[in-house]
Amino acid sequence: MREFIEKLQQIVGVENVKTDPDELERYSKDETSEIEHQTPLCVVFPTTAEEVSQIMKLANLYKVPVTPRGAGTGLSGGAVPIKGGIVLSLEKMNRIVEIDRENMVAVVEPGVITDEIQKLAEEYGLFYAGDPASSESSSIGGNVAENAGGVKVMKYGPTSHHILGLEVVLPTGEIVNFGGKVLKNVMGYDMVRLFVGSEGTLGIVTKIIVRLIPKPKYFATLLVPFDNVERAVLSVPKILSESGILPTSIELMDKQSALMASTFLSENIPHQDAECHLIIEVDGTDKDGLARTYINLGEKLQQMGALEVYIADNRYQRLKIWKFRKAIAEGIIAFRPRHCMEDVSVPIKEIPKLIMKTYEIAEENKLEVLNFGHVGDGNVHVTFLKPEQMSEQLWKENLEKALVDLYQTTAKLGGTITGEHGIGIKRKKYLSIFMSKNELDLMKKLKRIFDPNNVLNPGKVFD
Amino acid sequence: MREFIEKLQQIVGVENVKTDPDELERYSKDETSEIEHQTPLCVVFPTTAEEVSQIMKLANLYKVPVTPRGAGTGLSGGAVPIKGGIVLSLEKMNRIVEIDRENMVAVVEPGVITDEIQKLAEEYGLFYAGDPASSESSSIGGNVAENAGGVKVMKYGPTSHHILGLEVVLPTGEIVNFGGKVLKNVMGYDMVRLFVGSEGTLGIVTKIIVRLIPKPKYFATLLVPFDNVERAVLSVPKILSESGILPTSIELMDKQSALMASTFLSENIPHQDAECHLIIEVDGTDKDGLARTYINLGEKLQQMGALEVYIADNRYQRLKIWKFRKAIAEGIIAFRPRHCMEDVSVPIKEIPKLIMKTYEIAEENKLEVLNFGHVGDGNVHVTFLKPEQMSEQLWKENLEKALVDLYQTTAKLGGTITGEHGIGIKRKKYLSIFMSKNELDLMKKLKRIFDPNNVLNPGKVFD
Repeated sequence: MREFIEKLQQIVGVENVKTDPDELERYSKDETSEIEHQTPLCVVFPTTAEEVSQIMKLANLYKVPVTPRGAGTGLSGGAVPIKGGIVLSLEKMNRIVEIDRENMVAVVEPGVITDEIQKLAEEYGLFYAGDPASSESSSIGGNVAENAGGVKVMKYGPTSHHILGLEVVLPTGEIVNFGGKVLKNVMGYDMVRLFVGSEGTLGIVTKIIVRLIPKPKYFATLLVPFDNVERAVLSVPKILSESGILPTSIELMDKQSALMASTFLSENIPHQDAECHLIIEVDGTDKDGLARTYINLGEKLQQMGALEVYIADNRYQRLKIWKFRKAIAEGIIAFRPRHCMEDVSVPIKEIPKLIMKTYEIAEENKLEVLNFGHVGDGNVHVTFLKPEQMSEQLWKENLEKALVDLYQTTAKLGGTITGEHGIGIKRKKYLSIFMSKNELDLMKKLKRIFDPNNVLNPGKVFD
Repeated sequence: MREFIEKLQQIVGVENVKTDPDELERYSKDETSEIEHQTPLCVVFPTTAEEVSQIMKLANLYKVPVTPRGAGTGLSGGAVPIKGGIVLSLEKMNRIVEIDRENMVAVVEPGVITDEIQKLAEEYGLFYAGDPASSESSSIGGNVAENAGGVKVMKYGPTSHHILGLEVVLPTGEIVNFGGKVLKNVMGYDMVRLFVGSEGTLGIVTKIIVRLIPKPKYFATLLVPFDNVERAVLSVPKILSESGILPTSIELMDKQSALMASTFLSENIPHQDAECHLIIEVDGTDKDGLARTYINLGEKLQQMGALEVYIADNRYQRLKIWKFRKAIAEGIIAFRPRHCMEDVSVPIKEIPKLIMKTYEIAEENKLEVLNFGHVGDGNVHVTFLKPEQMSEQLWKENLEKALVDLYQTTAKLGGTITGEHGIGIKRKKYLSIFMSKNELDLMKKLKRIFDPNNVLNPGKVFD
């Protein structure tokens, strides 16, 4: 192994291969809770696609597993190293190569933090419409690897809708390019979309052409408490189809989530005791038109049984509402580090059934649970919490039972195990609940042709 | 072969296997001009996925090539049969299984004509945002196979953005399902997007879950003549980034296209002699807000050098403008059947260079040419026309030279050979201009794992 590490040092320079224990510990995990960490042999920091290519060729020669890593904010263990393997960090490939205003695209390296693209794009009147909740800390390369979703998917689509082209180093070291600075491209198979969401198992993305759109001028956010989850959720498609409005976001927090947020913020949410709250955001280019749109939306929500409609049409008030939404996850991490945040998606109208079932599952397994997520796309972050007094053993056993029940319920409702966080190592053993052997085999065959020696992030997504 | 056909008859019934010469002639081609036709052994019309599965298993047993076919409106020869093979027509799998209002999706069979989905969706206040120019005659299955684009890609994306789930019969006969009634789904590789745009070479789609969005309430269309193509094209990103407006469409017609349209319609376009016209469409949910939006847009276009801005804000006037756009292709087919319509895409700001170059290429090769297409996504339908007096021999030779020059120019400008029509048989020999051997090999390997006996539409996309 010393020989292998020396050759890595020859490729990227001694200063770009880290082996000290503190660093290795830092790269042994991502932000996924309740999964095993793994210490890598070393962490290597390439700065060019050519270096990535040489590293992959070396890894194939020595049969050393390589786990690519962006900012390490993943929630499925995708960036957790493989036993006996190395971490390939893309943190030093973090240049915004260009904002091309006339073609309305950005060309970026994978290590760029997503919000940095946004900030620079806005200076040109442009806008990156991908918006994972983690955009302040996650990298665009990680967003691509996971096909990150977020709170604007309903109007703008997931990350895959905004990626026009990729430079990719294949697991065997070849550098390939797919797509370009064009919005429409049907030249052969859609390789760009095959790499997006492949969780760092089919290739290492080294350059990304990102679509930018004109920046919307005005935004408004509605906070809408309901005394009934079903009424809240089912009001949505009815109102949208009657009004023609396509909001950017329709977020849902159940009572337990609202409690978590308000505890974290030491501040009550209006109608703290409502069964649930919706947060609805609309954007537009005409101020008065947008105002009529959200007033219309608010009136219809009240007709459908909303307890109240709070409207925020300036930045300060809007952030105040979104603060509650963001405080759910922050509160969970701060107060209840022993938790398991899930990412199931179901058809919209099944959300109430799913949420009711999670309360049952939690009760049966003596766990606590809270639900928040995205009504517009059916994605609910069911989060089980370990009661403080529960033993480790019981927590593990009961959580396992709860997860299996949750996934089986989700499958029965026509849903999917993960809407935006990915399979990684966290969910791979449950895939057979959702997919047939033929379906899974097809994916495994894909992996094999890209990575015949199984060196690129092996054991992620499936074994 | 008689045995093979008898077995087909056993699968789908005698009445669903056509062998009479008139039928075979009808299925020997699609709407692509200037390519060779091929008479199939027979045309088979399955009505269920199970039947499609049995047909594919039989085809593997007898090593008979199968070419799937939707409505036959393709423009790259994808549905043209293979020598010694059969056509598998999906015309009888044409049910709209459901419009699911609450989940805002439609479930349809591949043979449904795309406009039928639109009509039914609109009754529920919903909207299918995929919109190929051929939506009156093409099938949704064909749209999926080609990842059809159209005039609304700029705002709403190509077909792939609107497909949430697929039931697919693999080339070897297994029936698999990917995706579902959820907008976000990152469970493993994005198999849905791999099948979308695979031109009937990786599987036969037998059921499609289509996303529907709230139907926009108001539309307005601007017709904008310019005396300079470059000024017209480059005004676009500038205006959009300043105004925050994202139109649904920005179409371009050059002078020759406008002439073709007005000849076909026996009606002059306003500013008939302008170097080019833009057609810009915006939609929205607030009438007055939309009005301010297009007035703002119009003023900015005049500041940027537009000769005039004609605004149509009612259905009758709007259709009048769009009639000119649609008459280009109709005119070409009616008056100049000997033509070659191309589908290159380049980065937006390269459109003027591309168009100028097409005039040079045409002159060098003694051809006529016209250019129309989609500014918002860089997709230009460069169309070479055979001069009436030109010999067959010279037309073939010169067209070939013109195409190679066009493709090399496109590649140099950072573009792609096809934005929305596909590779099929028409463009496969030019792929190496745009892709490296490694890139092409990767696609070929994909094809091989899906279709080990190479029976599903072999020789399409690549050999």
